[in-house]
Amino acid sequence: MEGVDHLAFERNKAQFDVNDMKIVWAGSRQEFELSDRISRLVASDPVFQKDNRTALDRKELFKNTLRKAAHAWKRVIELRLNEQEASKLRSFVDQPAFTDLHWGMFVPAIKGQGTDEQQAKWLPLANNMQIIGCYAQTELGHGSNVQGLETTATFDPKTDEFVIHSPTLTSSKWWPGGLGKISTHAIVYARLITDGQDHGVHGFIVQLRSLDDHLPLPGITVGDIGMKFGNAAYNSMDNGVLSFDHVRIPRNQMLMRVSQVTREGKFVHSGVPRQLIYGTMVYVRQAIVADASIALSRAVCIATRYSAVRRQFGSQKGGPETQVIDYKTQQARLFPLLASAYAFRFVSEWLKWLYTDVTQKLQANDFSTLPEAHACTAGLKSLTTSATADGIEECRKLCGGHGYLCSSGLPELFAVYVPACTYEGDNTVLLLQVARYLIKTISQLGSGNKPTGTTAYLARVEQLMQYQSDVKRAEDWLKPNVVIEAFEARAAGMSVAVAQNLSKFTDPEEGFQELSADLVEAAAAHCQLIVVSKFIEKLQQDIPGNGVKQQLEVLCGVYALFLLHNHLGDFLSTGCITQKQGSLANEQLRSLYSQVRPNAIALVDAFNYTDHLLGSVLGRYDGNVYPKLYEEAWKDPLNDSVVPDGFKEHVQPILRQQLRNARL
Amino acid sequence: MEGVDHLAFERNKAQFDVNDMKIVWAGSRQEFELSDRISRLVASDPVFQKDNRTALDRKELFKNTLRKAAHAWKRVIELRLNEQEASKLRSFVDQPAFTDLHWGMFVPAIKGQGTDEQQAKWLPLANNMQIIGCYAQTELGHGSNVQGLETTATFDPKTDEFVIHSPTLTSSKWWPGGLGKISTHAIVYARLITDGQDHGVHGFIVQLRSLDDHLPLPGITVGDIGMKFGNAAYNSMDNGVLSFDHVRIPRNQMLMRVSQVTREGKFVHSGVPRQLIYGTMVYVRQAIVADASIALSRAVCIATRYSAVRRQFGSQKGGPETQVIDYKTQQARLFPLLASAYAFRFVSEWLKWLYTDVTQKLQANDFSTLPEAHACTAGLKSLTTSATADGIEECRKLCGGHGYLCSSGLPELFAVYVPACTYEGDNTVLLLQVARYLIKTISQLGSGNKPTGTTAYLARVEQLMQYQSDVKRAEDWLKPNVVIEAFEARAAGMSVAVAQNLSKFTDPEEGFQELSADLVEAAAAHCQLIVVSKFIEKLQQDIPGNGVKQQLEVLCGVYALFLLHNHLGDFLSTGCITQKQGSLANEQLRSLYSQVRPNAIALVDAFNYTDHLLGSVLGRYDGNVYPKLYEEAWKDPLNDSVVPDGFKEHVQPILRQQLRNARL
Ligand SMILES: Cc1cc2nc3c(=O)[nH]c(=O)nc-3n(C[C@H](O)[C@H](O)[C@H](O)COP(=O)(O)OP(=O)(O)OC[C@H]3O[C@@H](n4cnc5c(N)ncnc54)[C@H](O)[C@@H]3O)c2cc1C
Ligand SMILES: Cc1cc2nc3c(=O)[nH]c(=O)nc-3n(C[C@H](O)[C@H](O)[C@H](O)COP(=O)(O)OP(=O)(O)OC[C@H]3O[C@@H](n4cnc5c(N)ncnc54)[C@H](O)[C@@H]3O)c2cc1C
Ligand SMILES: [Ca+2]
Repeated sequence: MEGVDHLAFERNKAQFDVNDMKIVWAGSRQEFELSDRISRLVASDPVFQKDNRTALDRKELFKNTLRKAAHAWKRVIELRLNEQEASKLRSFVDQPAFTDLHWGMFVPAIKGQGTDEQQAKWLPLANNMQIIGCYAQTELGHGSNVQGLETTATFDPKTDEFVIHSPTLTSSKWWPGGLGKISTHAIVYARLITDGQDHGVHGFIVQLRSLDDHLPLPGITVGDIGMKFGNAAYNSMDNGVLSFDHVRIPRNQMLMRVSQVTREGKFVHSGVPRQLIYGTMVYVRQAIVADASIALSRAVCIATRYSAVRRQFGSQKGGPETQVIDYKTQQARLFPLLASAYAFRFVSEWLKWLYTDVTQKLQANDFSTLPEAHACTAGLKSLTTSATADGIEECRKLCGGHGYLCSSGLPELFAVYVPACTYEGDNTVLLLQVARYLIKTISQLGSGNKPTGTTAYLARVEQLMQYQSDVKRAEDWLKPNVVIEAFEARAAGMSVAVAQNLSKFTDPEEGFQELSADLVEAAAAHCQLIVVSKFIEKLQQDIPGNGVKQQLEVLCGVYALFLLHNHLGDFLSTGCITQKQGSLANEQLRSLYSQVRPNAIALVDAFNYTDHLLGSVLGRYDGNVYPKLYEEAWKDPLNDSVVPDGFKEHVQPILRQQLRNARL
Repeated sequence: MEGVDHLAFERNKAQFDVNDMKIVWAGSRQEFELSDRISRLVASDPVFQKDNRTALDRKELFKNTLRKAAHAWKRVIELRLNEQEASKLRSFVDQPAFTDLHWGMFVPAIKGQGTDEQQAKWLPLANNMQIIGCYAQTELGHGSNVQGLETTATFDPKTDEFVIHSPTLTSSKWWPGGLGKISTHAIVYARLITDGQDHGVHGFIVQLRSLDDHLPLPGITVGDIGMKFGNAAYNSMDNGVLSFDHVRIPRNQMLMRVSQVTREGKFVHSGVPRQLIYGTMVYVRQAIVADASIALSRAVCIATRYSAVRRQFGSQKGGPETQVIDYKTQQARLFPLLASAYAFRFVSEWLKWLYTDVTQKLQANDFSTLPEAHACTAGLKSLTTSATADGIEECRKLCGGHGYLCSSGLPELFAVYVPACTYEGDNTVLLLQVARYLIKTISQLGSGNKPTGTTAYLARVEQLMQYQSDVKRAEDWLKPNVVIEAFEARAAGMSVAVAQNLSKFTDPEEGFQELSADLVEAAAAHCQLIVVSKFIEKLQQDIPGNGVKQQLEVLCGVYALFLLHNHLGDFLSTGCITQKQGSLANEQLRSLYSQVRPNAIALVDAFNYTDHLLGSVLGRYDGNVYPKLYEEAWKDPLNDSVVPDGFKEHVQPILRQQLRNARL
């Protein structure tokens, strides 16, 4: 049966051109071709094969990762890949490695926070990988609250050096990826102290290990923090612990683009606005949202293909059973995730645009849109990563028992993904930031401060508070305006309601603490509105390809009406829709699921993932699941011998009653 | 700092007697003493220590499991433990092993489905562990749909034997725990065929391996199915694959309590009612619900203690930062899970009673309550396992980054727990069964069939459809009747609404398929009502202990109002409460959180878990988190050497530019 496409009959059902959809998903023909080329390159390279990952122990896995990272770098050089191609290559290798932090955090931090001279000195070294760096911010005792970090960098005017020191156990750096075993350098965040005065947290370039023998430099204690969640997953990364015993670095290794310490030890501002740093944050979060759409779409691709292969119940007269994808409950769990993957893809595309826009404005010294952009990216990071983490696990459950096998690819995808809910801002802490911004925006409405960007709708708050949907038939829910207005009215209504409750407190901060659970819900409603709006905006553009736009319209409807159904209480409470309208939305949702059904396989084919990337027997392109599951099983080390190690010592004595006879 | 109780100040805040609460949690003083004694016995035994689990590779882990299982059996014999004590001991060892299936499935299947003679022959062998058995039902291609199994057992009248055979690849048995490497015997489910006629699926006792050399018997292919989700977790279990090539077993190895095959090959019913078998199902599911409360309470215990240790933000003038447990968002995520753990505990207690009740009735040939008991246990299994799986992961996220370390104990707890959503009935499939029962109940209301047990409220359906809550102030939501009625009205309203929609279909089965997502929601609402009712009933009993009942009342309120808040759309749609009443419930919920706060640590202490069982640095009883996290880190194998294996070959050449120079 090799070579047979067991899902061909599904692919034939599609009502749109899958090749055109691939371009839409990738963002452009060029993006598509790039991803397509690099992913095949990786998939066909034996060094990058990954089927054996989950059976390796920690040391073997780590060594295997170093080997892949070296090979990736070799290929980058040999093929003279540019930055974008190289980064794609690393992502298709699909195994977290120290290089992720080197390229993703160390280099950008120097670019963003280093002076021109610092960049001139350090970037060539980093770009050639003559040094390898990581990003050491979090401490054992401090994560979310960066301002609470305890590590100190005390200026010593006598020697023109900073003394980096870990005053307590809890000040040990803890978590930085690449730190534990590999990095030669780190950007270390520490409290800057000059002349006994604390100037808050700043970044410093610190060498950790000798470039000769790789041993830690004097005063430095460094190691790995141990096993993390899941099989393989993030265990290929050396997240590390690091402490300093009065380690000295030259003054010019403080990142001085914004703030500087002079030879005399004076702390001064460079004149470059602090806000510049937030530009980077927008960039990083945009990348996280794009990653969410990739992780979720991988899981959805696996679960959708397997749901078409898997048959259970409903056999008529000995014929084949029903494909589980035909069950409405399966559809009601799976298709909203499929729609979410597309929704997150398009919102990440928009965020890319937002980043360019913000950057241009920053260069023109226009900081006006920054707070809104900041709140918006924080919220979208939180929304998309939480939904993706939950969505991957739901996809695993959608595969029944077989989803629990590592060979399904889903356990590892989940385990490697979930920390995205925690790093780059804990998702709850981020929503609280969004809420603060919304409350502030609302409180300033009277004072002529016009809300901008994604909060522009709040200018119409009075009108939105009166809004009552005019939906009369289920199909009315297909109209973009109807959907947008309901989501705007709901989000505005929730923000205003909590703002009113806040005003009852004499101490606003106490009110904010007390009502923070409601604030988080209002923030989430606002973020959902953004995703829905950007999906709808995307559909207002010209989208070429046979049947492509129609499919996206269906998915957009699924995404919006699924959210509405799941948060019906919000919509009813704010009075923007009636119970009847809520049940019409549900009816329309059901009908949209039927429209997705024949296109489901083609819609996940459009992601254009190789079997190598998916790493899943259940998600194989050809649907040849059962023989391959069977083959995979026998590869387990436990099957090396018929009688397992330990049987003779520990089980045979039981069977032979030797334990019992010895005593009774 | 060893020996210091860092959480003493929290324990002092408690407003109730924790020792009395321990008894309530355990169910009785006797249950408490049993658990307390056995858990300490296990915790103090060096063979049972488990800190190193997640660093072992598959073979090492498996051997380690065999060693523990043998030691457990040895202790059972030496200490002459009774069945209940032995089972507690195995559960406190807390590492899935072949013995779980031997005692939990193989022995009960023989007891439940074997004739008296079969029991007399096989039970002594099994009880002495002279044979080790597993439960082989699921196949590669068939899980939920047991009636679709493909394995055949064909009676051969010439030899008075059954021929067990696997006709296809997909008929291979797949998943049975203990099968892969250890079991000598299995209960194999296969289609019974006599004289060319298919009599459906029945159970057979089949020997798999030689009792001499443990090699598979002729015609039998057996092995392990490979790595499963997570570090250690279920990988200590040898879930297996098994296929038969015309394997012959004597006729008397068909389990014949209900149906029999005579010497002549005639298929006959024994006269023992088929329903008897359902009694066992009620028993198994009651145990699963009890396990849910244990798994969830373990996670909650870890997250609660760590939330009191962890401080982040809000430092006033250099003083300590705020304990994260003081943040309302943290409370709104954590305390409902704490309340759920208690709720599930009490509903499992009630299910124990239900099992006894059902068994007594069965013995008196009264099958009238069986369908209701069956639907109710199916629904509660689904509700509690889904909520527990999600709840464990939420607890992990509540611990921020550190929850992602295996040393937090939470990744493994999640990975080992999640299959409970799939085995013993996929949770969606189970809710569909509940829905079927509800719809049937409603359709028979007119015909004088009085609904019983947990569906009794449906007798008042007309009244409930008119119900409008009379809540006027937030505190009104503390009245048990107010809560019960709202939950009844909501559940009845949802069932009736979908029943009305169903009646629009000419083909009821088509309607059921089309509306199945709504049906599942109605079923879930019904199950939530059961849990809330049983919690409230528990509180109507006499509960001794200083302040104990008051705490439970608070938790009951949290559980109910949290559900109401999360499913507000249902309550508003069915019209049983108003928007205003919904927001009063939310207000009351907030105030209940404040009442839980000072008692939170004592409420998790009441679970009486040893540090051994928790297996979590974050959840340590003494709260001494940071030094222990630091210690744990250094134990990782990667820290065996300063320069890691692979560095010289794969990283040094990069740093020394040897890859680059070679080419450019
Ligand atoms: C896989 C992984 C990789 C990482 N890589 C790096 C790296 O390369 N470099 C680096 O420096 N760090 C890294 N980190 C650390 C990461 O950035 C932190 O874990 C993250 O910032 C969260 O902080 P925390 O762990 O202190 O969580 P905490 O802040 O301790 O969160 C615990 C709980 O408290 C709640 N909470 C905290 N503050 C508030 C508040 N004000 N209001 C309400 N609730 C609150 C949170 O919501 C959460 O539920 C990594 C972490 C992981 C898991
Ligand atoms: C850790 C573990 C241990 C196990 N141990 C044993 C054991 O000891 N012995 C044994 O015999 N088996 C065992 N099993 C197998 C287990 O019982 C099955 O996995 C379980 O019954 C689910 O069946 P499935 O895997 O076929 O799921 P499927 O039925 O294939 O489910 C796939 C999807 O289809 C959906 N679906 C299926 N039918 C319907 C329907 N009618 N309507 C709507 N949706 C539907 C499900 O909801 C799910 O989303 C074990 C499994 C696991 C994971
Ligand atoms: Ca090994």
